[in-house]
Amino acid sequence: MPAAVKELAEEVGQEIARQGAVLVCGGLGGVMEAACKGAAKEGGLTVGILPGDDRRSANQYVQIPIVTGMGYARNSIVARTAQAVIAIDGAYGTLTEIAYALQDGKPVIGLGTWSLSIGGRKEKNIIPVKTAKAAVAKAIKLAGNNS
Amino acid sequence: MPAAVKELAEEVGQEIARQGAVLVCGGLGGVMEAACKGAAKEGGLTVGILPGDDRRSANQYVQIPIVTGMGYARNSIVARTAQAVIAIDGAYGTLTEIAYALQDGKPVIGLGTWSLSIGGRKEKNIIPVKTAKAAVAKAIKLAGNNS
Amino acid sequence: MPAAVKELAEEVGQEIARQGAVLVCGGLGGVMEAACKGAAKEGGLTVGILPGDDRRSANQYVQIPIVTGMGYARNSIVARTAQAVIAIDGAYGTLTEIAYALQDGKPVIGLGTWSLSIGGRKEKNIIPVKTAKAAVAKAIKLAGNNS
Amino acid sequence: MPAAVKELAEEVGQEIARQGAVLVCGGLGGVMEAACKGAAKEGGLTVGILPGDDRRSANQYVQIPIVTGMGYARNSIVARTAQAVIAIDGAYGTLTEIAYALQDGKPVIGLGTWSLSIGGRKEKNIIPVKTAKAAVAKAIKLAGNNS
Repeated sequence: MPAAVKELAEEVGQEIARQGAVLVCGGLGGVMEAACKGAAKEGGLTVGILPGDDRRSANQYVQIPIVTGMGYARNSIVARTAQAVIAIDGAYGTLTEIAYALQDGKPVIGLGTWSLSIGGRKEKNIIPVKTAKAAVAKAIKLAGNNS
Repeated sequence: MPAAVKELAEEVGQEIARQGAVLVCGGLGGVMEAACKGAAKEGGLTVGILPGDDRRSANQYVQIPIVTGMGYARNSIVARTAQAVIAIDGAYGTLTEIAYALQDGKPVIGLGTWSLSIGGRKEKNIIPVKTAKAAVAKAIKLAGNNS
Repeated sequence: MPAAVKELAEEVGQEIARQGAVLVCGGLGGVMEAACKGAAKEGGLTVGILPGDDRRSANQYVQIPIVTGMGYARNSIVARTAQAVIAIDGAYGTLTEIAYALQDGKPVIGLGTWSLSIGGRKEKNIIPVKTAKAAVAKAIKLAGNNS
Repeated sequence: MPAAVKELAEEVGQEIARQGAVLVCGGLGGVMEAACKGAAKEGGLTVGILPGDDRRSANQYVQIPIVTGMGYARNSIVARTAQAVIAIDGAYGTLTEIAYALQDGKPVIGLGTWSLSIGGRKEKNIIPVKTAKAAVAKAIKLAGNNS
């Protein structure tokens, strides 16, 4: 993971905590760990929805590990549990979560993530932003409309 | 639900919170709500792993709703996420969670719940207790051996 | 697995195929494999709902492997997909499937399997039979009432 | 659903059956039903992995309904069970299945479906084709490399 992505994820986590929101993620390393680290720094609450059978597979910043034992099928639970999704960078797992959030009609905010189009028509329901602050502000605003 | 069962569930929730543990349950009404109510009274943390698509289906004492959208298949996640299972009374959903905990080799404490036997041999891995206090003490002790 | 259990499972599989029904199971070894073997002998159709990520984990008699990648959470799918459940012997996985079938109000036929009771009251919705033939006859009859 | 999409889906189903492959899909209406109809016409075998609790929700051309009761979380099972994925048109459910197949490293063939890019780099693992015949030929060839 490039350092810039890691930093961005950490900033998103910090900002989520500062706004008093709960961070929900897949609970493992990489972008997930960086975001949890950021949230933890600010005293925020972090939920990690784990694919495996063992709570100890969570990164060290996860406070509430949810042990699904369901593998990647847990990605749908991450998207469902969130009130808005902030997609950072472009792993395929992130793509599954974007797809589930779109299917659920849930807000998706993009930070350097996937662009989608079909038949030359661009997918409009991924809202691109440039900064962590803007991403969290947008997510919280749209989550409010979505209860 | 008989008043005695409700009271017992509430006491279990209280005792879990007093011991500083997190209450994990299915997040809906009945025994689940009574236990969450007890934990909330003592300032404890409550996680509700919901079967449906809507976080608002959680009972009012759930602080962290996990929205699975998976129906009763979420029972396996309840059992997996817990470090020990306290089974109260005898709905069939409780039975699925007992079965999953046994399959995972996880401690199961029974408070007026199912007895199982096969070929005349009694299932020994459900540990019967009489009181909420004893249930939580046993659960915490055995969870420690199970990390 | 005792030879008698294996034989019984194989007979159940044969009888399911003879009656023109589809055998649905967890797709792995032991009782599941023996039942699939029996069905295959009679030219029956076998579906194996696998816990893992790899279709090659199915036993050799599974014709339709369903690859869930969901671990034991797949047990709920086995119970849901079946129109009636025949429980043979007493692994804990079998117990989860019995519990899910009871929760769904689906017929459960027992061949040397778990007995359940609560507060001294015996669970009546597990119907005990003595032979493979009787198990399949009962299952097909009750499945008809349950579409 | 435009008539052209329906026709294309039906052709894909026919071609899958002609090549002796099994059609796996989500089991409901629209593209899924059209594909099943095509396969059934040619005497092919069709598996429908249903989101709901009721086997009767399957379209009439599904021969093996798998009843997950897991809602859209079942999309991961559709992708996992398939040895290659042919994505037709662009519902969001299709997008989740594309994403899961990419995550699993499974071949994805596209017929008028989503294009993905990230940071100006196009996703190369969705292979675009123009006809049903080409889609099925490609899928079967690549599935062979993927066991």
